[in-house]
Amino acid sequence: MSLSTTRIVAARVTPIAFRDPPLLNVAGVHEPWALRSIIEVETADGRVGLGESYGNLETLEHLAKIAPQLVGLDPFDLNALTRVVYGLVGNNPDTGATFAPEGDKARASALAAFEVPFLDLQGQILDRPLYQVLGGAVRPHVAYSAYLFYKFAQHKEDPGYPTDDWGEALTPAQLVQQARRMIDSYGFGSIKLKAGVFPPEEEIAGLKALRAAFPGYPLRIDPNGGWSVATTRRIMPLLAAEGLLEYLEDPVSTLEEMGEVAQFSPMPLATNMVTVAFGHIPKTVQLDAVQVILSDHHYWGGLRATQHLATLCRTFGIGISMHSNSHMGISLAAMTHVGVTLPNLSYACDTHYPWQEDEVIAGGKLSIRNGVLAPPPGPGLGVTLDRQALARLHQNYLDCGIRKRDDAKEMRKHQPDFNPQCPRF
Amino acid sequence: MSLSTTRIVAARVTPIAFRDPPLLNVAGVHEPWALRSIIEVETADGRVGLGESYGNLETLEHLAKIAPQLVGLDPFDLNALTRVVYGLVGNNPDTGATFAPEGDKARASALAAFEVPFLDLQGQILDRPLYQVLGGAVRPHVAYSAYLFYKFAQHKEDPGYPTDDWGEALTPAQLVQQARRMIDSYGFGSIKLKAGVFPPEEEIAGLKALRAAFPGYPLRIDPNGGWSVATTRRIMPLLAAEGLLEYLEDPVSTLEEMGEVAQFSPMPLATNMVTVAFGHIPKTVQLDAVQVILSDHHYWGGLRATQHLATLCRTFGIGISMHSNSHMGISLAAMTHVGVTLPNLSYACDTHYPWQEDEVIAGGKLSIRNGVLAPPPGPGLGVTLDRQALARLHQNYLDCGIRKRDDAKEMRKHQPDFNPQCPRF
Ligand SMILES: [Mg+2]
Ligand SMILES: [Mg+2]
Repeated sequence: MSLSTTRIVAARVTPIAFRDPPLLNVAGVHEPWALRSIIEVETADGRVGLGESYGNLETLEHLAKIAPQLVGLDPFDLNALTRVVYGLVGNNPDTGATFAPEGDKARASALAAFEVPFLDLQGQILDRPLYQVLGGAVRPHVAYSAYLFYKFAQHKEDPGYPTDDWGEALTPAQLVQQARRMIDSYGFGSIKLKAGVFPPEEEIAGLKALRAAFPGYPLRIDPNGGWSVATTRRIMPLLAAEGLLEYLEDPVSTLEEMGEVAQFSPMPLATNMVTVAFGHIPKTVQLDAVQVILSDHHYWGGLRATQHLATLCRTFGIGISMHSNSHMGISLAAMTHVGVTLPNLSYACDTHYPWQEDEVIAGGKLSIRNGVLAPPPGPGLGVTLDRQALARLHQNYLDCGIRKRDDAKEMRKHQPDFNPQCPRF
Repeated sequence: MSLSTTRIVAARVTPIAFRDPPLLNVAGVHEPWALRSIIEVETADGRVGLGESYGNLETLEHLAKIAPQLVGLDPFDLNALTRVVYGLVGNNPDTGATFAPEGDKARASALAAFEVPFLDLQGQILDRPLYQVLGGAVRPHVAYSAYLFYKFAQHKEDPGYPTDDWGEALTPAQLVQQARRMIDSYGFGSIKLKAGVFPPEEEIAGLKALRAAFPGYPLRIDPNGGWSVATTRRIMPLLAAEGLLEYLEDPVSTLEEMGEVAQFSPMPLATNMVTVAFGHIPKTVQLDAVQVILSDHHYWGGLRATQHLATLCRTFGIGISMHSNSHMGISLAAMTHVGVTLPNLSYACDTHYPWQEDEVIAGGKLSIRNGVLAPPPGPGLGVTLDRQALARLHQNYLDCGIRKRDDAKEMRKHQPDFNPQCPRF
């Protein structure tokens, strides 16, 4: 535990690709391979702290610049990490006095990518689980929701690619079937539908089928900004009927539009699209545009930043939950550790995890049961790498040819005239 | 470092009283003895984490209730500490979703009183200074300001009590003399005048004398809410002339009045009186009533809460500095450790420390030089108790008879018709 033995001696970033089903959203359809980066930060005494971030080229370039500059740092010195990151990534001069009003996702993402491994190392050095490093748990586990997607039965033009066993989901009945499997397998107690794919009335028919099949389950719908304000106004009575929704997520695509919708919405509005950085908070508060922020440590700047965000939300009476992209178990473990420390995490969090068959952590996938996950036991994050899996998923990355997610391009394989422009409806 | 050896086995609270000069303010004059409590939290392996809080009876009662309930806790589990404190102190039911709009000083103070010893223990267990536990330093030291007071030459009716060597300070020339000694002794680079004692024009004459004697030194004045809005409006041109003030602290006594003053003030308004809890922030932001929050970990809920507050201020472009009451070196060490971690600590902080001759930490008083103090070296807070001094200061407490600070009562010994009602001017 002396300082010299816990200094950082190396940091590695490994891009990976894992199979992803053809899940539909407003931007198109998921490609056959989802990209991600696995971050390892190693100390002199051989401990390895883990992190997970985006796998697109720009992120990888940033992480590659940062990694060698971390050698010699103490894993407890998050401000030193911040200085390194701010020196290498981002365009906004930052005196520390204010946050850039427009946000700086590249910088906050790069910071988070390494902050989690630093915190993992802190927990390992302390022989305590990460949530304890973060101030201790207020609940034993984090609730996650069933994250439903409209989906195709299979990907296009990829002969050797195995067909997933979820089947097609384009109708209300198929959605109910998908939800049934999700709930039977994981015990989820609430349901989110990724929307913006079909005209809103059709998607509301899906919600109503879900409500009939799963009475009492809180429902949410997320069109990813695919609706206009006028459309949202038109269908609001349908969404509000019988208290159909727990919250409405990103119906429209700008903060100003969310503010407009908030004025006539009888239900809370949630977002992971318009309020995605500390710099966006003042205007969000001023417009009272958002009632639930779907936090995401990957782009808010890490787990400590997530705790700051939660305090900020608590201060303004804004609810907090969590957003997710396609991810591996390292991200799920990080989400869960920070989630049990947040007093105001009042909604079940999103996760794509059930859609991923691959896993990069030893022991295989973490088990969500009864709709909840406890932080993996053991010091730090409580997860370690399966190095064979890492090598295999890295080979996928090298082979798959995808370097930047492009759901619209993938969608045009199915529908050549597809136009992802928003609002679509 | 195993969990069992670092569990808390005891917590002790010792009230102390130390000599305090007859410093004047809007509420009256400091009594001969200032009260404080010294908190010790001990682990199974004999480590002692230190804290310092208020010494009034109500605080002591709260701390005494909490102390025995901490046995068995892990010093890293701040949320467990929070549960204990919230279970025993405070009236507002708190679901974690929001903060009480009216604040809850008793609860936040009790939390802070023990959170600092918990964090001190964390640093000791980690063999790292406390600022490193808090995420690392962004600066090597914290700047403090020369905190000037109008003062009497000596206390009333206390025959055996030694006269301090600061002498009387009731005129501009005497203020300049006081400032000269402060600056010569400690190298302070900015000056704050505790005001609200004389009619504002007289106090502004004092500021002008200080400006003439110390050109280029940022000046501040703090009437502790002693002025009306009309008075503040009347004298604002005098305060604004030649950019006399760095900021104006609490000219008026309510948040609404601060909002009124902010509308015509050409300089930032600072407060440690109207925005003193997270629950006060929404209205503060809405009214744009405050441009600098003078944080104080003793009543904001601790050092982690101070970091949350700083992020919140950074988010809204509100400046941050620190408030002080009469205190010992434990508080100064805690202020300094957290201060070096705050990117947006953009003003020199207040401290009464030069006014205290007594000290409870081993090695005597910490040395402010060149107007700054670095965190004491060594693990945790970097300070330990001088047990003989503690016993002596506790005996002072038992002997002095003061159980609750009452500056007005003390003032009436000098001026029998003194009325502390605000606004005084
Ligand atoms: Mg979303
Ligand atoms: Mg003040």
